[in-house]
Amino acid sequence: MSDPVFGGSDAARGAGELPHAQTLTLPGSLPLRLGGELPQVSVCYETFGELNSARDNAVYICHALSGDSHVARHDEGDAPGWWDIAVGPGKAVDTNRFFVICANVLGGCRGTTGPASIDARTGRPYGGDFPRITIADMVEVQRRLLDELGIDKLHAVIGGSMGGMMALTWAIEHPERVGSAILLATTHCLSSQALSFDIVGRNAIFKDPNYNNGQYYDQEHKPDDGLAIARMIGHVTYLSDRTMSRKFDPDREHPRDVAYAYEKEFSVGSYLAYQGGRFVERFDANSYVTLSLAMDQFNLGRDHGSLEAAMGRIACPSLVVSFRTDWLFPPAHSRRMVDALLAQGKSVSALEVDSDCGHDAFLLENDLPVYGPLMAGFLDKGCGCVPEDQEPEAQCGAAPTNVRSIFFQNRLDLARIEELIEPGASVLDLGCGSGQLLGRLRQRGSGTLLGLELNPGDIIECVAQGLCVVQRDLDRGLGVFADGQFDVVVLSQTLQAMRRPDKVLTEMLRVGKTGIVSFPNFAHAEAVRQLAENGTSPVTEGLPFPWWSSPSIRFFSIKDFEALCAELGIRILSRIAIDSTTGGQLDADYNTRADMAICVLSGPSRT
Amino acid sequence: MSDPVFGGSDAARGAGELPHAQTLTLPGSLPLRLGGELPQVSVCYETFGELNSARDNAVYICHALSGDSHVARHDEGDAPGWWDIAVGPGKAVDTNRFFVICANVLGGCRGTTGPASIDARTGRPYGGDFPRITIADMVEVQRRLLDELGIDKLHAVIGGSMGGMMALTWAIEHPERVGSAILLATTHCLSSQALSFDIVGRNAIFKDPNYNNGQYYDQEHKPDDGLAIARMIGHVTYLSDRTMSRKFDPDREHPRDVAYAYEKEFSVGSYLAYQGGRFVERFDANSYVTLSLAMDQFNLGRDHGSLEAAMGRIACPSLVVSFRTDWLFPPAHSRRMVDALLAQGKSVSALEVDSDCGHDAFLLENDLPVYGPLMAGFLDKGCGCVPEDQEPEAQCGAAPTNVRSIFFQNRLDLARIEELIEPGASVLDLGCGSGQLLGRLRQRGSGTLLGLELNPGDIIECVAQGLCVVQRDLDRGLGVFADGQFDVVVLSQTLQAMRRPDKVLTEMLRVGKTGIVSFPNFAHAEAVRQLAENGTSPVTEGLPFPWWSSPSIRFFSIKDFEALCAELGIRILSRIAIDSTTGGQLDADYNTRADMAICVLSGPSRT
Repeated sequence: MSDPVFGGSDAARGAGELPHAQTLTLPGSLPLRLGGELPQVSVCYETFGELNSARDNAVYICHALSGDSHVARHDEGDAPGWWDIAVGPGKAVDTNRFFVICANVLGGCRGTTGPASIDARTGRPYGGDFPRITIADMVEVQRRLLDELGIDKLHAVIGGSMGGMMALTWAIEHPERVGSAILLATTHCLSSQALSFDIVGRNAIFKDPNYNNGQYYDQEHKPDDGLAIARMIGHVTYLSDRTMSRKFDPDREHPRDVAYAYEKEFSVGSYLAYQGGRFVERFDANSYVTLSLAMDQFNLGRDHGSLEAAMGRIACPSLVVSFRTDWLFPPAHSRRMVDALLAQGKSVSALEVDSDCGHDAFLLENDLPVYGPLMAGFLDKGCGCVPEDQEPEAQCGAAPTNVRSIFFQNRLDLARIEELIEPGASVLDLGCGSGQLLGRLRQRGSGTLLGLELNPGDIIECVAQGLCVVQRDLDRGLGVFADGQFDVVVLSQTLQAMRRPDKVLTEMLRVGKTGIVSFPNFAHAEAVRQLAENGTSPVTEGLPFPWWSSPSIRFFSIKDFEALCAELGIRILSRIAIDSTTGGQLDADYNTRADMAICVLSGPSRT
Repeated sequence: MSDPVFGGSDAARGAGELPHAQTLTLPGSLPLRLGGELPQVSVCYETFGELNSARDNAVYICHALSGDSHVARHDEGDAPGWWDIAVGPGKAVDTNRFFVICANVLGGCRGTTGPASIDARTGRPYGGDFPRITIADMVEVQRRLLDELGIDKLHAVIGGSMGGMMALTWAIEHPERVGSAILLATTHCLSSQALSFDIVGRNAIFKDPNYNNGQYYDQEHKPDDGLAIARMIGHVTYLSDRTMSRKFDPDREHPRDVAYAYEKEFSVGSYLAYQGGRFVERFDANSYVTLSLAMDQFNLGRDHGSLEAAMGRIACPSLVVSFRTDWLFPPAHSRRMVDALLAQGKSVSALEVDSDCGHDAFLLENDLPVYGPLMAGFLDKGCGCVPEDQEPEAQCGAAPTNVRSIFFQNRLDLARIEELIEPGASVLDLGCGSGQLLGRLRQRGSGTLLGLELNPGDIIECVAQGLCVVQRDLDRGLGVFADGQFDVVVLSQTLQAMRRPDKVLTEMLRVGKTGIVSFPNFAHAEAVRQLAENGTSPVTEGLPFPWWSSPSIRFFSIKDFEALCAELGIRILSRIAIDSTTGGQLDADYNTRADMAICVLSGPSRT
C-alpha cells in the first residue's frame, strides 16, 4: 500500500477510526489450535452491498497483514479503502451484486480481539501474553461471524498475501461453506527467505529496549524503533526491484524531508523512514509479532501430511493468481499449489500476471486490467453456480463467436475432434486458446475439462466462460498430471509450434488414455509445388505465415508424423487426412493430397 | 561466506588474528574525496607468491564488505582463507605464477586505518567521527601501497561485490596501472533494493541504545544487537531463495540450539542468530556503517556524467561475471556495465553463470567449474600481455582443433568468409561458437574482434584463447551497439536457428557496415527430392537433424533469403552459392544446386 506523500493513496487509519465497522462479541470461548483458549472474542467487521433473500451472494474478503475491514469506500465521502480499485459498485467484486464482508483479523489491532485487548482474567491488556494463534484460528473467528450473520455458504472467499492463507484455510477446512476461492499472491507455506525477513523484523522488535516483553501499553515509550525497522524490511520485500528503481532512482540522493527521520541519505531512505514512522502510528508491535508468527507457522503440507492431501480437501473451484516479480510470495509457490490441485483433479484456473510491481501488485492499479476481469469472470461463471437471471444453456458453450487460429482460418478440425471424443470423457486441451473446443464439449456434457494455455487474454476469456484453464508452457512438460489422468488429451494445431514435438507427444500419451493431434501437412502437393517449382518456402492455408515470422517452427508431413510415432512407440488408432479447401477426407495419396491431418493416438503402454 | 556449524568453512577471525599480515604506515596524510583528510593511514596487507624480477606479475584482489586480507592459506597449517578455492598454487589465480596482494580496506576493522583507530588529533578512537569515505578513497590507499611495494602496473585487479566496485575504480581512475580487470558479482551502482537493505541495517545500528553516536569503544556494551540485525538482513540478501530452501526447509521448524539466541522458532532463525552473533565478535559496527555507506554512495554514472563516460576511461580488457540468482548485485547490472563497455568499443568478455547460489556464488565451490576456468583463461591470455615463455604466434589463432557446427560438419564457409573480410577490419561475430572464425581473423591481423555467444562452454574456450566474447541472446537484438560500429558483422550458420531472422538481419546491418551471412539452402534439389519423392521432411548435409529436434527452426531457400532482403531494403553485394559436397561455387540454378550460401550484405541506408 502506497501513501499520499510519495504518491498513491493510503488506507492507513488509527485504531478506532473505522466509522462503518460494527463490533460483535462472539458467544463462548475460542479454543486455539496450538493450545489454550481465548475466553472471549470480539470481532470488528464491515459489510458492503446487500445480502440477497437466498443469502447466497456473500463474498468474504480476507485482508493481509497490515490491512483491515475497510476494504472499500462505503460512499463518496468515505475514507479510501485499501481495495477500492477492485471492490465497489460495478467493479471486479461488484457490490451491486455481492454482499461483501471483511472483518479485522484475530490478533490484529483494529477492533477484533488482539494483544491490546483486555484479558478478562487479569483486567490488563494481553500484551506479550497474548497466546500464539494460527491462520486457522483467524478463520475460525470468521466462521463464527458468518454463523452470527446467518450465512451458511459463501459465494466466494477472496484473499491476497496473508489473506490468501486464510482463503486457502476456508476452502480446506470448510469445503461445504465455500462456493469458490480466489487466491492472490499467496502461498501454502512461506519461503525460507520470506520467513527470514519476518524473523529479523521480530528480532528488531524484541531487542527494542521499550519492548519490555510486550507489556508496554502503559509505558511512555513503545517499541517504535523496532516496529519501524520491521516495517521498513517489509516495505522492501513488497516492492520489486524495478518498482523501486522507477520510484527512487531519479532522485536517489535527494531525500525528502520527513518527520520520521531515520537516515536522510537517500530518497529511498526517507521513504522507508516515512513508512516505518506511519506504521508505528497505526499498528501495534505485539500484533505485528502475533500475525507474522501466524504466517510463518502456516504450512499446509506439514498440517495435512502433504500439500496434495491438503488440496484434496477442497471442494470448490479455485482461481490462483500470482505476479511475476513477486519475490515474497513467488509465482513458483502458486504453481506448486496449482500442481497439487491438478494432481487431485480439482477445478482450478491459474495465471501468472506479467507484472513488474512485486508483491504489492494485487493492491495496485497497474495490473488491474488483467486480474480484475479474471476475478470478475470467475465470480460470475467460474464458481459452478448459475446466476439467477441466466439459463444454464446461455452461460456456457455458446457457439464460439471468436474462433481464431494462428494456422487455419477455418477450424474445421475442431468439429472433427469433437466427434472423436466420447460424451462424458474427461479432456485436457493443450493450447486451448480461448476455449472453443472446451466450450463445445461442455455444451454436450462431459467429464472434467481442463485447458492449458500461455496467452493471458485467452485465459481471461476461458475463465469468463466458466472454463478451467491453467497457464502453462507445454514445452515444460506435463509432469504434474498422473498417468492416464484424462480420457483424452487434445493438441490441435499446436504441435508445429513446439520446440520438442517428440516430448510433447510422449507426455500427452502418458497423461491421456487417448491423444488427438491435428497439424498441417508440409508434404501437401501445393507446398511441394511451391518449393520445387518456385524454389520458395511454402505459404499455404495451413502454413499461412512467411518463413521468417511464422509461429510454426517445425515442418513435417503426415508420413513424418507417422514415422515419429513409430519411433516413440505410439500407436495411431485412426488418421483423418483432410483437404481443408473442400473439407473432404482423403485416403489415397493422403500425404500429398491432404493439407491437414487429425490423428487419434494411444501410448506405448496401452493396447 | 558460510560457517562451520551450518556447513562450510568460515574465514572469520578477530581483529589482529591475521598472522601473515604486514602493516605499513603510508607517508603523508590522505585527502578524502568528500572533503577532510585522514592525517595518517596504516595499511595491513598480505601477499601470496613471488614478485618476479620484471615486477609485472602482481594481481591485486579487492575483498568484499566482510572479507579481509587473508584471501588464502599461506601454507598447510594456516587458517582457511576466504577464497582458498580460487587462489593458491595451481588454482585459477595461480600463486605459482602471480604475486597476489590483498590489503584490508580503509574504514574496516582488520588493521588498516578505520573507525576503531586512534585519531592522533584527539588521542581517542575515531568512532562515529571517522570521516565519510568512498570506494575511491579505499583504492587510493591501495595505490599508495603499490607505490610502497614498487609495483607500477598490475597484471590484473580482481574483485567481487564491494571488491568489484574497487576493481572498477582501479580500472577507471588508474588505467595506466591496470593490465586487466575481473569484475565478479558487482555493480556500477547499488540497486534501490540493495540500498534499502543497507539503510535498514544502519538504522538498526543507529537505534541501538548502545550505539552512542559511535563512541562505544570504552563502553561495557556495544551496539551488538543493531549490528547483528544488520548482518542478519545481509545474510538473507547473500543467498538465493533456492539455496535457503535447500538449506533450511528439511528441518524448517527444528532450529539448532546456538549460543546466540534471538528467535529459536525456525532453523533459519537459529542460523541467522548464529551468523549475527558471530559477526558481532569479529566486526565493528562503525566499520559496518562506514563501508556500507561507501558502497551506497558508489555511483559511476553520477561521478562521471554517465556510465558510458566512466567506462570510456578504462584502457584494459575486462571480464565481467554475474550469477543468475544474485538478486543483490543482479546480472542486469553487469549487462548494463558490459553494454557501456561495448558502446565505448572496449575489450570485454562477459558471462552470466547459471548459478542458483545467489550473491555468495562467487565465494562458493558450486560454480567454480565455470568461473574458475574463465578467470584462469582470462589471466593467462585475456589481458593482452604475452606470457614470457610463449611466442605471440603460439598463443593465438592456432589452427582450430575443435571445429564444431550444429549444421555443416565441414565448415568450409568459414574459409570463404575469412576471404571476404579485409585484413584489419573490425568484426562482430554473432554466434561465434568457440571462436574458430575470430581465431583465424586474429592470426591474419585485424581490428576489434568481438564474439557474441550463448553457450558458456564456448565462451570459456574463447576467453582461454584471448578472444573477447560476450554472452548474448541474438533474438534480443543488438541495441547496445552504435550504427556502423563494426566494419563487418558475421552470422554464420545461425540465421536458421533464430526466432526472427528479419530482425537479426536488420540489426546486423545497422551495426555493421557490411554483413556476411551463411545458411543452408532448403530448396536444394536433394531436399526437394526427399520432400517430393519420399514425402518426408528433408535430412541433408546442411539440415542434418530430424524435424522434431533440430536447432533449425526456419526453413528457407536462397531465393527466400533474397526476397526477404529485398523486402527489408538490404542489398546483396555478393552471393556465393556452394555445393558443399564438392566445395564448388555455383551460379546457374544456384537455388536448386547449392546446399549452402554465403551472402555479403549492406544495409538500406548505405550505398
